[in-house]
Amino acid sequence: MDQVKRYRKFPIFRYPERTWMDQEITKAPIWCSVDLRDGNQALVDPMTVEEKVEFFQLLCKLGFKEIEVGFPAASQIEFDYLRTLVEKNLIPDDVTVQVLVQCREELLERSFQALQGVKKAIVHIYNSTSVLQRDVVFGKSREEITAIALSAVEMVKRHEKDFSGELRLEYSPESFTGTEMDYALEICNAVISAWGTKAGREIIINLPNTVEMHSPNVYADQIEFMSKNMKEREHVILSVHPHNDRGEGIASAELALLAGAQRVEGTLFGNGERTGNVDILTLAYNLFSHGIDPKLNLENIREIQEVYERCTKMHIPERHPYAGKLVFTAFSGSHQDAINKGLQAMKERKSLIWEVPYLPIDPADIGREYEPVVRINSQSGKGGVAFILDFQYGYKLPKGMQREFADYIQSISEKEGEVSPERILEVFLAEYVEAKEPLLFKNLRSMDMENEKEHYVSFVQLSFENKGILKEISASGSGPIDAVANALQKELKKEFEVIDYSEHALSSASSAKAVSYIHLQDKASGKMTYGVGISSNITRSSVRALFSAINRLYY
Amino acid sequence: MDQVKRYRKFPIFRYPERTWMDQEITKAPIWCSVDLRDGNQALVDPMTVEEKVEFFQLLCKLGFKEIEVGFPAASQIEFDYLRTLVEKNLIPDDVTVQVLVQCREELLERSFQALQGVKKAIVHIYNSTSVLQRDVVFGKSREEITAIALSAVEMVKRHEKDFSGELRLEYSPESFTGTEMDYALEICNAVISAWGTKAGREIIINLPNTVEMHSPNVYADQIEFMSKNMKEREHVILSVHPHNDRGEGIASAELALLAGAQRVEGTLFGNGERTGNVDILTLAYNLFSHGIDPKLNLENIREIQEVYERCTKMHIPERHPYAGKLVFTAFSGSHQDAINKGLQAMKERKSLIWEVPYLPIDPADIGREYEPVVRINSQSGKGGVAFILDFQYGYKLPKGMQREFADYIQSISEKEGEVSPERILEVFLAEYVEAKEPLLFKNLRSMDMENEKEHYVSFVQLSFENKGILKEISASGSGPIDAVANALQKELKKEFEVIDYSEHALSSASSAKAVSYIHLQDKASGKMTYGVGISSNITRSSVRALFSAINRLYY
Repeated sequence: MDQVKRYRKFPIFRYPERTWMDQEITKAPIWCSVDLRDGNQALVDPMTVEEKVEFFQLLCKLGFKEIEVGFPAASQIEFDYLRTLVEKNLIPDDVTVQVLVQCREELLERSFQALQGVKKAIVHIYNSTSVLQRDVVFGKSREEITAIALSAVEMVKRHEKDFSGELRLEYSPESFTGTEMDYALEICNAVISAWGTKAGREIIINLPNTVEMHSPNVYADQIEFMSKNMKEREHVILSVHPHNDRGEGIASAELALLAGAQRVEGTLFGNGERTGNVDILTLAYNLFSHGIDPKLNLENIREIQEVYERCTKMHIPERHPYAGKLVFTAFSGSHQDAINKGLQAMKERKSLIWEVPYLPIDPADIGREYEPVVRINSQSGKGGVAFILDFQYGYKLPKGMQREFADYIQSISEKEGEVSPERILEVFLAEYVEAKEPLLFKNLRSMDMENEKEHYVSFVQLSFENKGILKEISASGSGPIDAVANALQKELKKEFEVIDYSEHALSSASSAKAVSYIHLQDKASGKMTYGVGISSNITRSSVRALFSAINRLYY
Repeated sequence: MDQVKRYRKFPIFRYPERTWMDQEITKAPIWCSVDLRDGNQALVDPMTVEEKVEFFQLLCKLGFKEIEVGFPAASQIEFDYLRTLVEKNLIPDDVTVQVLVQCREELLERSFQALQGVKKAIVHIYNSTSVLQRDVVFGKSREEITAIALSAVEMVKRHEKDFSGELRLEYSPESFTGTEMDYALEICNAVISAWGTKAGREIIINLPNTVEMHSPNVYADQIEFMSKNMKEREHVILSVHPHNDRGEGIASAELALLAGAQRVEGTLFGNGERTGNVDILTLAYNLFSHGIDPKLNLENIREIQEVYERCTKMHIPERHPYAGKLVFTAFSGSHQDAINKGLQAMKERKSLIWEVPYLPIDPADIGREYEPVVRINSQSGKGGVAFILDFQYGYKLPKGMQREFADYIQSISEKEGEVSPERILEVFLAEYVEAKEPLLFKNLRSMDMENEKEHYVSFVQLSFENKGILKEISASGSGPIDAVANALQKELKKEFEVIDYSEHALSSASSAKAVSYIHLQDKASGKMTYGVGISSNITRSSVRALFSAINRLYY
């Protein structure tokens, strides 16, 4: 790619005193949703006022305590929207609304008009500090750029006097990552001094990864440098605002938290300018998967997704880490097998801790369903098919039968593609449970008794059809199944052996049934197969399984 | 979220001797595409043999030299596919095909059957080494797991004797990130010794982030520990295979490269199990944006996307860092303005280096178009509207007019939503260029001459319609426009002043026209507006602009 000559990387900032690689995230940061500003402005069709109200209410329900509601000085819609929230009394008492505004008097004045009646507000002022923007966009020196920020701080202080609610100031040196760190520190420190912080008058300094220019370790170095060198640090809430230009927004946010950030601005599902803002949901679920309370109510991702998609008209990618359609799906046979065993081990050990291979969290904990966890295609192995029959329908196939049955499904999937759970059940029933030709079990009467040697003996009277002709036979054996096997061997002139036998209850809402599995071998040829029978009566389910196995073995 | 109690994080591995934070990526790694295996197996509808052939050919065209073509021992389709590639002679001489296979003799034998006739092959064996999988899936000790890997190495060595092509071995301790590092090192070292490396007989040791369990700095620590402590390191090609469970696959890969990895396994657009594999395209474009040759031919992302979407039936998310529909779109007015100025500065400075705010790369360099860079909605400022008119249509509006015109567009977008470039042009022409009521310019004859004081004087004869009635008037002035203005002031009984005037050539394929902008103020009321005129003749375009401004100012 010849065009590569047109590019060079922005100089990498290094902070040799860094310690973030040895830190650990132990609690959730302060979350600030910028869905209604950064997110909304990046939509082909921005939300209507009604949609923005619904979205705001969703954010409140999810537990966001800081919500940037827009740029009220930028357009009438944005202004009207904030007024609607205020006038309809839609802002909960514990929620702070944040407004973005450039460092200009007329815009600040308009913003304060929009904020009238708000109980808790953050006024978020910003100007661009990067080398490139100072040069080509503003044609201004560092001093001139600093002067713009400082004069805005003074304007906010003037308006503050007439504002009846609680007010906090947020300052962003926009394009922070493209700024020389000494200058970024200088302008932030100047703003901090100008505002005059003290306990109860904290300032939010927000360091946006406006354009993601480097891998996230460089951002972490920048954040730690700023955090360690910032004035009045104890009265500064250090905030980050990552974007995703290199696809590393999540990592940038997490490493920034290790580096000292206390607050994250982002959006649901990473909506936002260009490649998007950092996705707060993924950040929060990542915390959750590590046993750290995300301090958001994220139990129902489907509901979040529904409101989000309807209001933004955006789509959730199939592989979004927690909401993607396919992310709790395992196609690979070995993965399916391992998931199966992991779930089994948790059950057996009665473990409360979630530890299942390939599934970082239990989908059920976030409102997703187990149902599609395993899909079966031509690359699936026996484990997946067995999982479906067990998990979806409660059939616990013996191990040897898992392999035998999986072969049927594989040959179907090589022809038909993905095989649905319903189709798997249908094939299972047709092949094993409904193998009723040529022998069809009709009825059984049995009597168990102890003989003179204190062994139990079973006597049975069996009626069945062979190619439609009714037969009635009697026999004895060590148990009813042995007796039926003896009777049938005689009648059919075959010699076979029951190699293995298992059964379990098949619970369903309405009735409890038993399912029996019989592994049968023909003595002459050595050929083997399985049969399955179902009945509310254990003896009958076994006899049905035997009939099924005989039909499959000989016919 | 109460359910958070069910989770705990896997112990964090720390490598205090780490140096990766101070490293820099200076060249592309060896790329290995696993689209046809890891990617394909994670599709609801796996690709057909024909689609896989097309996909393979795309990968070759993009410049991949190592391509995992599947798991030929796993199913007939996978086997047949590799045979098709061999028998139809579709594998270029410089491309190595890689096959995945578990550590089992019958599967290895089948894999070597599938590989017959391949000139360059990698046999990729793996077994799972994680604490959890050893426990719940295999119920085996470390020693037993190591024995499985070592016996597979011996099997490969036996088959190697009968294989006519070049053969390389790759070993993956699957679920590496969930493995104790001392054991991961132990098993990899054992495999390296058993294979017997030397110059020309390198082994690939692949350390998959099978499930992304931590932020990428932890993976980097793991990789650097392994890289620094591995036996016969000079004959080991250290490979990584990141997944994306926490949304950090890209960062994991980049930090792993800093930590010593030399090779990356991944897929186009991050297709793969669950949340996906690492996206090689994003990794490669990230290198490109830093001026590092990605060693892949990625000039046409649209073509890659077309084949990918058709074969996999997956969708590219709207915000994919390089292919997403919206990622080269700036909605925000201030962003649009900055982009505009950045492009302008590059042009003026004749700079070859791409430096434009908010756009890490020139979309044109990867086969995307400038055209949709700026879309106009109700949150756009004047900069965006001006950019569209300039970039798309060549009209360079004077600054004051930008604001005036942007107000029209804003009120339209508040009603109609996004405003297309066509609609912007339409409104511009209707409001400014075609303001022909009530005054309609018809004709002008002018004569310029020097008077006795050596000042130039223009005499004009002007014909125009006023509400359909033809008028002819004469006047003089310091230039033709001044003369026309004088004539019209007299005729209309108005006093106005031309505050500003500008014009530029409007180049189009077929003809060169001039466009003139006139800023006009009514002396009585102070009211101001602009008018625009277009003509192949400069004087006429100016007069038309004046007529337009008068019509807009007074009627």
